[in-house]
Amino acid sequence: MILINGESKEHIEIADRGFQYGDGLFETIEVRDGHAVFLERHLERLNSGCQRLYIPFPGAELLSFEAGELCRRWVSDTHSVRAVLKIIVTRGSGGRGYRQPDVIQPTRVLSLHPYPDYPEIYSEQGIVARFCVTRLGLNSTLAGIKHLNRLEQVMARAEWNDPAIQEGLMLDVNDHVIEGTMTNLFYIKNKCLYTAVLAQSGVAGIMRGIIMTISVDHGFPVIEHAFTKDELLSANEVFVCNSIIGIWPIKQIETTRFSVGPITKSIQSRLDRVINRELNSEQ
Amino acid sequence: MILINGESKEHIEIADRGFQYGDGLFETIEVRDGHAVFLERHLERLNSGCQRLYIPFPGAELLSFEAGELCRRWVSDTHSVRAVLKIIVTRGSGGRGYRQPDVIQPTRVLSLHPYPDYPEIYSEQGIVARFCVTRLGLNSTLAGIKHLNRLEQVMARAEWNDPAIQEGLMLDVNDHVIEGTMTNLFYIKNKCLYTAVLAQSGVAGIMRGIIMTISVDHGFPVIEHAFTKDELLSANEVFVCNSIIGIWPIKQIETTRFSVGPITKSIQSRLDRVINRELNSEQ
Repeated sequence: MILINGESKEHIEIADRGFQYGDGLFETIEVRDGHAVFLERHLERLNSGCQRLYIPFPGAELLSFEAGELCRRWVSDTHSVRAVLKIIVTRGSGGRGYRQPDVIQPTRVLSLHPYPDYPEIYSEQGIVARFCVTRLGLNSTLAGIKHLNRLEQVMARAEWNDPAIQEGLMLDVNDHVIEGTMTNLFYIKNKCLYTAVLAQSGVAGIMRGIIMTISVDHGFPVIEHAFTKDELLSANEVFVCNSIIGIWPIKQIETTRFSVGPITKSIQSRLDRVINRELNSEQ
Repeated sequence: MILINGESKEHIEIADRGFQYGDGLFETIEVRDGHAVFLERHLERLNSGCQRLYIPFPGAELLSFEAGELCRRWVSDTHSVRAVLKIIVTRGSGGRGYRQPDVIQPTRVLSLHPYPDYPEIYSEQGIVARFCVTRLGLNSTLAGIKHLNRLEQVMARAEWNDPAIQEGLMLDVNDHVIEGTMTNLFYIKNKCLYTAVLAQSGVAGIMRGIIMTISVDHGFPVIEHAFTKDELLSANEVFVCNSIIGIWPIKQIETTRFSVGPITKSIQSRLDRVINRELNSEQ
């Protein structure tokens, strides 16, 4: 189920700069009870990403309207109230080589996909993670943005096939641990949460931001800093997060084991409440 | 004029990983006298890029055949024997998020475009270049490959609009000068050519490789090394190159002027001869 610039289509022109150069941005959003969760925040991030890449933002009202329209169709066609909404905004077509056109007409693509069938056990009992060999490059121009240049993640995810490993953790070229291939990463030590600084690489996830707010409100300070594998492995609790999975505790990184600790569980249950409040306010 | 997997089409499905993640590669090739120049070398590089990204190579014979087919149509439809051929190969559709599908069916897109109307004077009297603020990230996994993650180049090219400046030179995050936004860069000092090492960033251009061979054959050694702005600005001659423009001498970088020197001119004329020999052997 796809809307391209408001029309039901499944194809994009070859000349689109999203295809030619990865010249665009995206958001991946959970649809629960037929509603796009934290849609407003996702659209704010998309707006700020557009500003950083000088792409005109198509507008929160328009994107909200189209997202709602797609969700209604999804519920009515599939009789499912859960899905994943992906919004892509590109710089559109035109320009000369890398040079952007004088007048940018962005392309917007909204698509709905079945919610992935991750076992509940991942949230409850934790997952197994590994360190990837593929590194994240450093580039402050693109750091933090959820842009369409995702070859680093594709290459990192291609490193393992073992279904017993659910996520790969990525380091930057300076040996700092940054994030998972599809998640942000937190560790907990002495009742304090730690997560990577995203000034040179990584994606500043919506769920990461929400968890930071929840933690601080809950009395657990959050520190963004640069940390190594060894610092991570000496943590009391570790978890990864994104907008689709929520929070997955990590029970094992390579040979180091962790327990699903009380602070992770407490943040998980507060996150559930925040999401439910958000959904109730929508309805 | 576009061929997608052998069929005349202008659109690609949204699910294509080239659009979703920039998960693919490309080649930009000059068409002169109706023939794709150095096609064999471009296809060799495409093959080695595919190997590095674990994308099955569609095959040199098939791509050559389709390129020839497109060139014939172009000459017959436009009555022009000059054009730009772009070949894109992506990982196709499918997979789960960043994870590639178990069976990869690559997408190949061949398209022909009018040859850009760069003034002859650029080759003869040189161009003006500037240093870009946007840096190239470091990542050995992707360095040297002509992949579809090109936001760094797009952002760098968006830094200036002044038509008097023809190219922007990019540094990596360690302050080493690497290349132009759409070109590779050489400088000449004491009868020796210097160009950047491309182990951590940059695109290993076909024209760069040809020029390195020509120079060495011609008695001018070529040294790949890491160099700074200051080292570049102290050069006797500077030029940029790619498969479409050939060689453009640089006559000015910001406030530093250079003359179009004898070694650059000599390499330019040898390059012309190499291209003509290549075209004659094709016909």
